[in-house]
Amino acid sequence: MNNEALKCILTRRSVRSFSGQSIGREELEKIAEAARLAPSAKNSQMWKFTVLQNKKLMKKLASVIAAQLGRGDDYDFYAPDTLIIVSCERDYAYNREDCACALENIFLAAHSLGIGSVWINQLNGICGVPRIREVLTELKIPSSQDVYGMAALGYPAEQAATVEKKEGNVEYIY
Amino acid sequence: MNNEALKCILTRRSVRSFSGQSIGREELEKIAEAARLAPSAKNSQMWKFTVLQNKKLMKKLASVIAAQLGRGDDYDFYAPDTLIIVSCERDYAYNREDCACALENIFLAAHSLGIGSVWINQLNGICGVPRIREVLTELKIPSSQDVYGMAALGYPAEQAATVEKKEGNVEYIY
Repeated sequence: MNNEALKCILTRRSVRSFSGQSIGREELEKIAEAARLAPSAKNSQMWKFTVLQNKKLMKKLASVIAAQLGRGDDYDFYAPDTLIIVSCERDYAYNREDCACALENIFLAAHSLGIGSVWINQLNGICGVPRIREVLTELKIPSSQDVYGMAALGYPAEQAATVEKKEGNVEYIY
Repeated sequence: MNNEALKCILTRRSVRSFSGQSIGREELEKIAEAARLAPSAKNSQMWKFTVLQNKKLMKKLASVIAAQLGRGDDYDFYAPDTLIIVSCERDYAYNREDCACALENIFLAAHSLGIGSVWINQLNGICGVPRIREVLTELKIPSSQDVYGMAALGYPAEQAATVEKKEGNVEYIY
C-alpha cells in the first residue's frame, strides 16, 4: 500500500507494554498538534491537553485513582513514558465525542512516529471526587473540566497484540 | 514533512461542499476498513457502519430528520455522494467514544484518498422517534442501536475553509 496515512490507520493497535525510552519534546509537540487539530462540534475546541511526563505526578494521579476504584498499589497506567490527559468542559454537549476524536488523532500521530499508545479510561465519572479533583487541580486542569480519556504513550516494549476484528458489521446500500 | 500520516491528520478539515463525482466501491471499502479498525473500549466493536449511496433513501432519511427538527425541505446533509451512518448499541457505556474514534478514522481515511467529509450530528437523541426509527429499520440498522454520528462524504467542490484553532490549550508538565 502506498497510502501511508491509511496504512497508519490500519496498523495501529493498542500498546500496553512500554520500553523505558523517553519521548522527545519534538515528538510530543507533533502529537499535541494532532490532538488540537481534531474536529470538534462547531469547532468548539472546549478541550485541554495536558502532556504529563513528570513521573511523580503521574504516580500521584494513579494512586488516587487506584484508591478510588479499589485497584492495587501497582496501578500505573501501564507505566507509560508520557500520559496525555484530555479534559473538556463538563457542561458541553459533545465533550465525549470531541475528546474521542482528539484521542484517536493522538494514537495515530504517535503510531506514525513509532510510539505506542493505549486509551486509559479510569477517570470516567470520578473527576468530582475531592481527592481526585485535588490532583487534577495540581495538574492545572480547570475545575469546570472533567477528564474524558487519557493516552498512555511510550515506545513499545514488544509488538502489539493482534486483536480480533468482527466481520459483518459493514452494510453497503446502493 | 515526510510523515504522510501526520500530514493527513494535520491537513484534514471539514468539507461541506461536494462535487457530483461518485466515490468508487474500492475507496468506500478502504474507508469502512479504517472505521472497523478504530479502537473501541475492550475491543467491544458494538458498532455498525452503514455505507449509504442510495440517493432516494438518503433523501428519505434527510426528510424525516428535517421534519423532526423543523428544518427546511432543503435539508440534505450537504448533498454528499455517500453517507456513512455509524450506529452502536444503545445500552453500551462507550458508544459515543467508540463511534467518534471510528468517525475520525473515516474522516482521515477519506482525506488520504482526496475525499472530503464532515460530521453530521442531527440524529442525536431522536433515533427513538417512530418515523425516524422506521427509516433506520429500512436501512437495516438494528433496533437495539442508535446512531451516534454520520459522515457525509464526497469529492470536494472547493477547498475546505480554514478554521481558527485556539492557542494555549496544551500544557506540558515535566
